[in-house]
Amino acid sequence: MKKITFWFEFASTYSYLAAMRIEPLAQAAGVVVEWKPFLLGPIFAGQGLTDSPFNVFPIKGAYTWRDLERECIKYGFPVLQKPAVFPGNGLLAARVATLGADADWQADFVRGIYTAQFVEGKALADTETSVGVLDALGVDGAAIVEWSMSDQGVKDALKANTAVAQEVGVFGAPTFTCADGELFWGNDRLDDAVAWAVRG
Amino acid sequence: MKKITFWFEFASTYSYLAAMRIEPLAQAAGVVVEWKPFLLGPIFAGQGLTDSPFNVFPIKGAYTWRDLERECIKYGFPVLQKPAVFPGNGLLAARVATLGADADWQADFVRGIYTAQFVEGKALADTETSVGVLDALGVDGAAIVEWSMSDQGVKDALKANTAVAQEVGVFGAPTFTCADGELFWGNDRLDDAVAWAVRG
Repeated sequence: MKKITFWFEFASTYSYLAAMRIEPLAQAAGVVVEWKPFLLGPIFAGQGLTDSPFNVFPIKGAYTWRDLERECIKYGFPVLQKPAVFPGNGLLAARVATLGADADWQADFVRGIYTAQFVEGKALADTETSVGVLDALGVDGAAIVEWSMSDQGVKDALKANTAVAQEVGVFGAPTFTCADGELFWGNDRLDDAVAWAVRG
Repeated sequence: MKKITFWFEFASTYSYLAAMRIEPLAQAAGVVVEWKPFLLGPIFAGQGLTDSPFNVFPIKGAYTWRDLERECIKYGFPVLQKPAVFPGNGLLAARVATLGADADWQADFVRGIYTAQFVEGKALADTETSVGVLDALGVDGAAIVEWSMSDQGVKDALKANTAVAQEVGVFGAPTFTCADGELFWGNDRLDDAVAWAVRG
């Protein structure tokens, strides 16, 4: 089965769009999605950035919120709202998504966190946000969050994801990689990435 | 007649794609294109950037040349090559395009410079590049270049374009603005911008 790897960071706005769009596109193309959480902070730091580019370049940042609003309308998704704290800290949610790599709730959890953060105004970093999304999926949120934060294997796996992301050339999110190593950056390239995965 | 304003900088790679694509899209939609040359240097400097973002963030820059290659193939355009000097200095060509604002050769000159620079390997800053493109269009290249560089009105008009660009929120190129002020950044938003101009 052909595969596409979807590299996402929970604080990333355009990853919200990609997370909502990728499954139907991939399924229609006969491609399996590998959901790969990673942390953008260390990768931005390696580029000399210590904050979101939206904040570093405020005129571009202001434009970007407007662009996101138009994009949400175009795709028929609830319009994304700027969180009170931006970028939020996605460590806990990324640990949970890493723990859930082989669980049937992983993709729903990812979409749930993006919706909670960008549509419902919940804080990404709050434990209750992750617990609430998990509970709504019918699994034991408190237990999974506790496990995610205390398990050394989960911690190491997320660090490894971030290291591999950097090795394969990821510099932002969302990013899509295909089996042959071809890399596509940004929600605007999702369709091209899926088409590449089909040909690959 | 409905109008879309196309803000372009000659050193901008994605402006090459937009310059090649905009006329057929706009014509099909019944929209007139206003070609507006400006200089990105002063605008980048206002954001604290003193070089192309492609050079400031080299991993992203390397990706971008690959993305441009794929985009050229997608659109059926000759594949863009990285110039020996990048970003080139587009002052002379921007002055000529400013002088030609009401001339029937303006759009052809713009497309010609992008092709000379990004396909034929000619230096953007060289006088001969602009002269050659103009001569090929059947006008007097040497005379127009001389006029462009010596005329205070042309100099002031290009400065005014750049000042207006900054005022309306342009932070990169290509940018498209509609009559109601709506702004779209990047070749990836050209179709959306034309659709907006139609509705506006």
